[in-house]
Amino acid sequence: MDLDEIPIKPIGIVKSPFIEHFGGPRRTTIAQVVINQEHSQALEGIGEYSHLIVIFWMHKMTHNQKNILKIHPRGREDLPIVGVLASRGKTRPNPIGLAVVELLDVNDNILNVKGLDAYNDSPVLDVKPYDHYDVKNDIKVPSWWTKISQTHSKK
Amino acid sequence: MDLDEIPIKPIGIVKSPFIEHFGGPRRTTIAQVVINQEHSQALEGIGEYSHLIVIFWMHKMTHNQKNILKIHPRGREDLPIVGVLASRGKTRPNPIGLAVVELLDVNDNILNVKGLDAYNDSPVLDVKPYDHYDVKNDIKVPSWWTKISQTHSKK
Repeated sequence: MDLDEIPIKPIGIVKSPFIEHFGGPRRTTIAQVVINQEHSQALEGIGEYSHLIVIFWMHKMTHNQKNILKIHPRGREDLPIVGVLASRGKTRPNPIGLAVVELLDVNDNILNVKGLDAYNDSPVLDVKPYDHYDVKNDIKVPSWWTKISQTHSKK
Repeated sequence: MDLDEIPIKPIGIVKSPFIEHFGGPRRTTIAQVVINQEHSQALEGIGEYSHLIVIFWMHKMTHNQKNILKIHPRGREDLPIVGVLASRGKTRPNPIGLAVVELLDVNDNILNVKGLDAYNDSPVLDVKPYDHYDVKNDIKVPSWWTKISQTHSKK
């Protein structure tokens, strides 16, 4: 396989009321991860986890955004300019999205989840169970991150 | 863009002593994530985080493994058969790997990290800062997961 470019076939699609960038109440949004029927058996046992990591393709990114190396986080000019890889936004070389979500229930090939900040119709690349190795405590984040987070919790 | 197949260009490569599947001391392994020079400016500010999420391509997967829907976790027949999406192994429709790692230091385009269970030379698809929204407490995992975890900590 030529690893200069890796072709990835989505395994499903996101169905969500979330259609505006950062505009929605992402932490409480309930969305569906609809896995293609051909892979539905691959979900067996996933309901035993309380949380999942959903990896999706941020398909609303424009080609132009792919070449930007630095940004103001969330476009906020009061925040320092950082490299796109130091941010979770969709402006990045590969617009792969990632969210840790709560798994509410599983219905055949449909995962009902809470906290998925993917736009409606985002292609799903992978779904992984979230486990204890993913939990890190005493973490350090930049002060601008804390500033954004405080703004959000005041809303 | 045709979303039936998404072409992803790696942004870097893993350099690691880790070359055997599950054989290495993955939690303590120190590895390098080498970001391509063209994206090195995209790392600005990443050193302010203590942890990162590294998304890589598990390039050692064979085409055959891609079509398997259920497995014994880690190939252990004493554990129940589960769907591949209910496991973190490399047998899955898209062999995307994900690890939450500790960021030790940043040297130009090289990230020194601890806890990356990617094979040497794995293509890197994305690097994301790990933040407080990624930390979930009171999580639930299957009993087989706990069983594996106990085996490991006894080693």
